[in-house]
Parts: sequence; structure tokens; C-alpha cells
Amino acid sequence: MNTNYYMDLAIEQAKKGLQVNEVPVGAVLVDDIKENIIASFHNEIIKQNNPIKHAEILVIEKACKLKNSRYLNNTSIFITLEPCAMCASAISYARIDKLYFGAYDEKKGAVESAINFNHNNYYVPEIYGGIKEIECSLLLKSFFNLLRKNDVKKT
Amino acid sequence: MNTNYYMDLAIEQAKKGLQVNEVPVGAVLVDDIKENIIASFHNEIIKQNNPIKHAEILVIEKACKLKNSRYLNNTSIFITLEPCAMCASAISYARIDKLYFGAYDEKKGAVESAINFNHNNYYVPEIYGGIKEIECSLLLKSFFNLLRKNDVKKT
Repeated sequence: MNTNYYMDLAIEQAKKGLQVNEVPVGAVLVDDIKENIIASFHNEIIKQNNPIKHAEILVIEKACKLKNSRYLNNTSIFITLEPCAMCASAISYARIDKLYFGAYDEKKGAVESAINFNHNNYYVPEIYGGIKEIECSLLLKSFFNLLRKNDVKKT
Repeated sequence: MNTNYYMDLAIEQAKKGLQVNEVPVGAVLVDDIKENIIASFHNEIIKQNNPIKHAEILVIEKACKLKNSRYLNNTSIFITLEPCAMCASAISYARIDKLYFGAYDEKKGAVESAINFNHNNYYVPEIYGGIKEIECSLLLKSFFNLLRKNDVKKT
């Protein structure tokens, strides 16, 4: 599987999110057997006025509908940012096999950085972090820098 | 606020879930100011073929639509089971003020039992656990005992 190719697609999604003022995180779900893309999204928290609508959640919801199944075995998820506890749990519940992420999230990352799940009680995918980390991370940093600048202007 | 009354309504929801073979967990969201019910659900994982559709998630999604807001300040959520990491995060993102739960979940409970969030990085509601604990817990135990008996019959 061409890991960089799919992470590039996730980055494209994140950039699309940036254009509509969403936190620039993108996610792509790939069928491990057919090697085709099942779903790809950026965050839609503002668009849907719903704090749950992270890119990973949207990808899982669409894939469950398409496959008419609550289990997504034999799939890989590519995310530009280490998933938070909500998304890491959702990925586990959906039994996604492999999780590839770009930037680490020291504050909320729930597969390596900030929160430790008890692996005995959760289905845990194979996890690969730091793919195209700098590019993914710079996208987020530029977004939050801009937010801070705008906040300063307002004051 | 009549805590027992709202927890009874959450238990009613859990019982409705039991009737359609869902894990019996119920959730009710209450407006703290008007003291009316905004939304109430049981799990719909089987119904929607989607592992994310825990009662808490459904309640938050409906409330965000009704209020046309991604923030649910001035609300309380009543849940028959301690929320998992996915739901605890969603409750935090939605900025629900108070969280009342019934049974503790030693395996996946993410506000007291199994997983510790770094509270500096999350909005944390007021938390009250163990309300009508025995009733909530017995509902879940009887469901899982029945599941095990059915599994034994199949073998």
C-alpha cells in the first residue's frame, strides 16, 4: 500500500477544510483488499454545527452506510493528526485494522501522546505515526497562528 | 433539579433499547434553565448499523440540531452507564455542564473508572456517579447474562 499517496489525499482534505475555516484535519479510509478509497472527509464541525463531526467520525459514518455494516475490518484509516479519544474509540469500535497518522497531538492525542487506553478492553489497530508529519503539523500551526493573530486584532 | 426523575427516564430509554436487542444504555439531556427535556435516546448501534451511535452521541446530535449550536451549555446529561472515552469526549466538546451517571464501567468508563483524561486539555463537566446504580447495573448484567446463555446454547 502506498502510504504516502493516501496521506497526501488526507492532506488535500485538510487543506479543503482550511478553506472553509475548519481546523485542518483530513481523513481517508482505504479498503485494504481492493486498495480503493471508501470515504474521505475534512472536519465539518462548523458546517454541521456539531462538535462531533471530526473527519474520522464522518469517514466511519459514511463507510458504515456504504458497506451496510458496523464493522470496517480490512480497512486502513489515514489521518493528518493523531486522533483524539473520541475518534480513537470510534476507530476501535469500527474495527478498522490499520491507523496511519501525520502530526502528533501532545494535548489530546489518544493513541500515543496524551491518553492511554487500557488495551485489554479495546480492539486496537496497528498504529503508524509521524507520516508526512512536518507537512501535517505545519498546516495546523499556520491555522492556529492565524486564529491567534485575528484574536489579537479584535482586542 | 429532580435527579432521580431524570435518571428514571434514562432507565426507561435503556429498557426500550433492551427490547430491540441493543445494549441497554439510555441518555437524557435536560435544559438546566427551563428544566425541560431536550432529547432522550437509547443506543442505536444495531438499528443504524453504526458503532458510534451510543445513546449519548444521539442525544448530542439531536440537541445540536434543535438548538442550531455546537455548544450545549446550561444542560445536564443523565446516562445509565458511565460514558466511554468516545462519549466522554463528545460531552466535553459539546460543553455540557453536568454529567449524572448510574452504573460504573470498570472496563471502559472514562470519567472515573478506567481512563483518565488530562483535565487541563479538556472541558470537564461536573460529574455525579452512582445514581440509581443498582437498577442501571442490573439491567446491563441481565442483558449480558442472556447473551452468554444464548452463546452457550449455540455451541
